[in-house]
Amino acid sequence: MAQLRIALAQVNPTVGDLDGNADLIVEWSRRAADAGAHLVAFPEMMLTGYPVEDLALRASFVEACRRALDRLARRLADEGLGGLPVVTGYLDRRSVGLVRSGQPAGAPLDAAAWLHNGEVLVRSAKHHLPNYGVFDEYRIFVRGDRLPVVRVHGVDVATVICEDLWQDGGPVSVTSTSGAGLLLSINASPYERNKDDVRLDLCAERAREAGCALAYVNMVGGQDELVFDGDSVIVGPDGTPLARAPQFVEHLLVADLALPAADASEPGRTPVDAPDGTTITVDRHVLTPDPLPAYPVLPQSAAAPMDDLAEIYAALVLGTRDYVRKNGFRSVVLGLSGGIDSALVATIASDAIGPENVHAVLLPSRYSSEGSVVDAEDLVKRQGINSSTVPIADMVEAFERHLDLHGLAAENLQARIRANVWMALSNEHGHLVLTGGNKSELATGYSTLYGDSAGGFAPIKDVFKLTVWDLARWRNTRAGCNSETSRDLPFLHPFAQEPIPEAIIVKEPSAELRPGQRDRDSLPEYTVLDPVLADYVERDMGRESLIAAGHAPDLVDRAIRLVDIAEYKRRQYPPGPKITPKNFGRDRRLPITNAWRER
Amino acid sequence: MAQLRIALAQVNPTVGDLDGNADLIVEWSRRAADAGAHLVAFPEMMLTGYPVEDLALRASFVEACRRALDRLARRLADEGLGGLPVVTGYLDRRSVGLVRSGQPAGAPLDAAAWLHNGEVLVRSAKHHLPNYGVFDEYRIFVRGDRLPVVRVHGVDVATVICEDLWQDGGPVSVTSTSGAGLLLSINASPYERNKDDVRLDLCAERAREAGCALAYVNMVGGQDELVFDGDSVIVGPDGTPLARAPQFVEHLLVADLALPAADASEPGRTPVDAPDGTTITVDRHVLTPDPLPAYPVLPQSAAAPMDDLAEIYAALVLGTRDYVRKNGFRSVVLGLSGGIDSALVATIASDAIGPENVHAVLLPSRYSSEGSVVDAEDLVKRQGINSSTVPIADMVEAFERHLDLHGLAAENLQARIRANVWMALSNEHGHLVLTGGNKSELATGYSTLYGDSAGGFAPIKDVFKLTVWDLARWRNTRAGCNSETSRDLPFLHPFAQEPIPEAIIVKEPSAELRPGQRDRDSLPEYTVLDPVLADYVERDMGRESLIAAGHAPDLVDRAIRLVDIAEYKRRQYPPGPKITPKNFGRDRRLPITNAWRER
Repeated sequence: MAQLRIALAQVNPTVGDLDGNADLIVEWSRRAADAGAHLVAFPEMMLTGYPVEDLALRASFVEACRRALDRLARRLADEGLGGLPVVTGYLDRRSVGLVRSGQPAGAPLDAAAWLHNGEVLVRSAKHHLPNYGVFDEYRIFVRGDRLPVVRVHGVDVATVICEDLWQDGGPVSVTSTSGAGLLLSINASPYERNKDDVRLDLCAERAREAGCALAYVNMVGGQDELVFDGDSVIVGPDGTPLARAPQFVEHLLVADLALPAADASEPGRTPVDAPDGTTITVDRHVLTPDPLPAYPVLPQSAAAPMDDLAEIYAALVLGTRDYVRKNGFRSVVLGLSGGIDSALVATIASDAIGPENVHAVLLPSRYSSEGSVVDAEDLVKRQGINSSTVPIADMVEAFERHLDLHGLAAENLQARIRANVWMALSNEHGHLVLTGGNKSELATGYSTLYGDSAGGFAPIKDVFKLTVWDLARWRNTRAGCNSETSRDLPFLHPFAQEPIPEAIIVKEPSAELRPGQRDRDSLPEYTVLDPVLADYVERDMGRESLIAAGHAPDLVDRAIRLVDIAEYKRRQYPPGPKITPKNFGRDRRLPITNAWRER
Repeated sequence: MAQLRIALAQVNPTVGDLDGNADLIVEWSRRAADAGAHLVAFPEMMLTGYPVEDLALRASFVEACRRALDRLARRLADEGLGGLPVVTGYLDRRSVGLVRSGQPAGAPLDAAAWLHNGEVLVRSAKHHLPNYGVFDEYRIFVRGDRLPVVRVHGVDVATVICEDLWQDGGPVSVTSTSGAGLLLSINASPYERNKDDVRLDLCAERAREAGCALAYVNMVGGQDELVFDGDSVIVGPDGTPLARAPQFVEHLLVADLALPAADASEPGRTPVDAPDGTTITVDRHVLTPDPLPAYPVLPQSAAAPMDDLAEIYAALVLGTRDYVRKNGFRSVVLGLSGGIDSALVATIASDAIGPENVHAVLLPSRYSSEGSVVDAEDLVKRQGINSSTVPIADMVEAFERHLDLHGLAAENLQARIRANVWMALSNEHGHLVLTGGNKSELATGYSTLYGDSAGGFAPIKDVFKLTVWDLARWRNTRAGCNSETSRDLPFLHPFAQEPIPEAIIVKEPSAELRPGQRDRDSLPEYTVLDPVLADYVERDMGRESLIAAGHAPDLVDRAIRLVDIAEYKRRQYPPGPKITPKNFGRDRRLPITNAWRER
C-alpha cells in the first residue's frame, strides 16, 4: 500500500466570475498545501461556476475560460504551489469540431483538468450529460470519452465528473480495468431533500464497482435557483465512509488514505470498450512514480449529517444569502403581514444577511386584524430588524374612486398595492425584494400575480405549508441562551429569544383581503392537501395513481383542478413565479395552453 | 410511373386537446376523401398538439394519447374513411423500456402512425431530436430507429418526422436505398424570419438526396410562445417546387403526383446502416400493390410566399389570436398611451379577435402630453375599439403621501399603478391583458417590472423598435377601400381608414414618466441600437465579433452593458418577460448571478 493525503476543497464559486473563482482555487490550494496534502480537488465547473446555462454556447466565454485555466496553472506555480497537483472543473470545447445541425455551438465540454508545475497536464470531460429535472446539458455540452489516470506518489488516481457516477457505463465502468487506486469524482450536485443518503449509497456502490476508494468533492453555495450542499465524502473500496465534510459550509476535507500502489503500467492512451456502447480512452500520466516513505496519519474527520429540518433550513438560508450577495445586493425589503409565511421569510433573511440588513414594511388594510399588526411588531422587536408602517387604505380608496371592483378583483388590488410599495422602497433604497409565497399556495394559485407573489427571490417557494410551520417551530427551539446553535449550526443568527412569536405560529392562516377570510374557505386542509400536492406536483403522478396511493378521490380531483388552473394562469401571466423552481422537487415544464385534463 | 393524389392537411391543433384534435383529423380526412385523395398526412404530434413539454413525461397522458390513437383509427373506419390511408403524428412510448438514470421517464416517442381500415398499420418515431433554441427534446423523448415504407397504389411512401430532415444521417439517409417513390415528412416547425426560404432549400436538397419527390406538411397556428406558419410544400426528385400551401392559414394542399412504381420488394423489416452510426430498420408494408389506372390530374396550386413584413405581421396576429383563444379568453384589455408600441398592439389585437373584443384604457398622468391623449382617442375612433379613461393622478398622490420617492422609483410607480388598473379590469371583466413592450426596450431594460411589462401576452416582445415602425406603416397601407387586403391577407380586419394615426407614427418616442423625457436620453438611436441588439441577443456574438461586424466600439460596449444589466435585473426579478421568447430569435438562457462581462 501507498500513503496519500488528499484534500477536497468544498468551496463556493460564482457563475461567470473567472477571476474570483481562480482566486478561490489559489487560496484553497494554499490551505491544502499548508495541510500537507499531496493532491487537492475542486468541484465540477469550479472556474466558471455552475450552472452556466447558455453562456457555454458563447465562444468568447469559452475562450475566456480556457485562457483563465492556463493563467491559473502558471499562477499556482508562480506562487509556489506548482508541486501540488490541482484537479479542477472548468469549461472547455472539443478541439476537432464535428459541426452538425442540432449540436451545441462550439462543442463545449464540462471539463476537468490536472494542473501541475505551471502546466495543464491532462484534460478530460464529462461523459454522461444529465438532461432531466433541473439539468439540460444536452443543450450546452458534448460528451467526453476519456478517463485520465495520473500516478501521484505511486498511486494511480482516476478522475470522473458528477453524472458519470450516477449512470451505468462510461468512464466509471472502466475504472476497475484501469487498475486505479483511487477514483476522484468532482461534482456540482444540487441539494434535494434526502439526497445526502442517496449520494452516500451511490458512492459506496461505485467504489465497490471500481474496486478502489472513492473521493467525492461537491460544490457548496446558492446559485440562482439551485443550492449546493457540499457534503463531500471519501469511502473505502468496500463502500465504508472514511471522512465526510459538513453540509452547507465551505470546508477543506483532508484525509490520509492507504491505497494500493500502482502497477508498472506505462504512460499512454488505451481504448477500452465501455458497457454503454462507447469507447473510453484511458489516458495514463505519471507525476511521481514512487510511494512516499511512511508518515504519521492525521485523525479522520467525519461530520454528522444534519437532521431533515436543519438541512432544509440551512438550504433556505444559504440560497437566500448567496442570491442576495451574488446579485450585488446588501439588504432586503419584505412585506410583513403578521402571518406565518412572511414571519419565516423574515427570519431566514435575518439568519442569511443579519437583522440589520432586513427592512420590513407593515401594510395594514381595513381588513387587517389588530393581532396581525401587533404580532408583526413583536417579530420586528424580537429580531431587531428595521421596519416601517404604510397603511394602504388611502391608496385603495384612490383606485376605488375610478374603478368599480368586486370579489377577487378587489382582493387582488390590495395585494398589488402592497407590492407597489415594496417595489418602490426597493427602487428608492436598493433593497432586493423577498416575497413570501409557500409552495402550497403557489401550487394551488392561492396568491396574487404582481401582488404578494412579486419580488426578486422567494425563499420558501419550494416549501409546503406544513413544513413552513415545522421550520418555524424548529427555528424557535434553536434560539436563546441555552441553545448550542452557534457551535453546531453556524448559519443561525444568535437571537436572544425565540425569533417568531408563538401567536404567529398558532393562528389560523388567512390572507386578510376580505372580512373573516380563512385559507380553509378556499383550500382543503393543509394536512391532506400537502401530501397530494407532493405526489402530483413533484412526482407527476396521474389521477389514478394518486387515488391508488391512498388520497381520497374528491381531494385528488380538487387538487388537480386547483393546480392545473393555477399553472395555467401562472403560465398565461408568465411573470408569476414558477413552482418548484428551487431545488427540492422537479421543475415542471408544462405547456401553457394545455387543454388536457386528468379527468 | 404511377399516379397518386396526396393531401397535406396543414391544420391547427391545441396542446392537450386529444378529443378536439382527433375531431380535426376526422374532419380534414373527410375533406381529403372528398377531394379524391389517396393518402392524407397531418403534422407532427397532431393528436397532442406541439410542444407538449413535460406532459410527455406523465404516464397518464401518454396512455391517454395511445388510446386516443386507437379510437381514432376505429372512428375513421366507422365514418367510412377507413380506406383512406391517414398518416398522423402522435405521442407514443418505447414498449421495451430500457430504464436508465438520465433517460426520460417512460421513454416517450415523438411518433407517427399510418391508420388504415380501423387499425394502426405501422408506427415509427422521430430519430433526430432537436435540442437547441426553443427545443429541448432530449429532455422528453427517446429516439426512434425505423423508416416505414408503405405501398399505396403501387408507390412506396416513406415517412420521417421534422428534425429527421434537418440533420444528416438517420432515416432520410437510407430512403434512397429503400427505393421509396415519395418521402413524406410531417412537421411542427415554428416560424422564424426568413425560415421559409431555408426550409424550401432543405426540402429540395433532401429530395435530391433521397432520389424521390418529397411532401412536407407543417402545422399552422399559435401555441404558447411559438407560431407555426404552415407553408407546406411538395418538391420533385430534382428539388423543383410542385405545390405550395399558403402561410399562416389552415389549408388542404392536394396534388396529383406521377411517381416511380415500386419494385417487387416484399413486406418485412430490413436493417440498414445509417451514416450517423445508427442502424435504421426499413419496415415495409403493402396496402395496395398495383398502380391506379390513369386518371385526369388536378391543376397544381402554388401559393406565393408573403413578403417579409406581411409574414411578421401575420405571425403576430395568429400568435395573439391563438394565445387568446386557446387560453379560453374572448377579449383583451390594454393600456393605450398614444405611443407607437401600444398603438401597434391594439391594431394587432383588432386584427386577431375583432375591434369589438378589444378594450383600451387611457391612463393619463401629470406628464402625459395633450397630443398623447388626443392621438390615443383618434386610434380608438379609427378602429372602433372599446375605451375608457382612468387618470392616475389621484393614485400617484395617495402613494406619495406615504412614500418619499425620487428618480426612477417615482417613474416606476406610475407604470405600476397603470398595470394595477389593467389587471383590475382583467380580473373584474375576464379580459386577457396584452402588454406593449418591444424587443429593443425589453432587451435594454427600458421598461418597468410589474409596470408596462405586466400582462399575459406581449405581442411585439420579439419585434425591434425599427420594425415596430415598419409594421405600423405597412399595416396602414393595407387599409381603406382601395386595398386588396381582404382577398390576399385574410387575417386583416377591413378598416375603412388607416388604423394608426400618422401622428403616432411620426412622434418622437417617450415614456412620459417625467417632464420632457425622450427615449434617446437613455438609449442610443434605434437606427444603430437595433442592429447591434440583433447581433448580440439573437446571434450571441461576443464583444470582439460585434466590433469586427462593424458596430462602433462605444456603441457595442453601451449595448452590452444595457443588455447584461437588463437581463440580470430581469432574472433577479423573474416575473419580467423574457426576451426572444417568441419565435424570431434564439431563446437565451443565461444564468442570473452571472459575474462575467464581455469586458
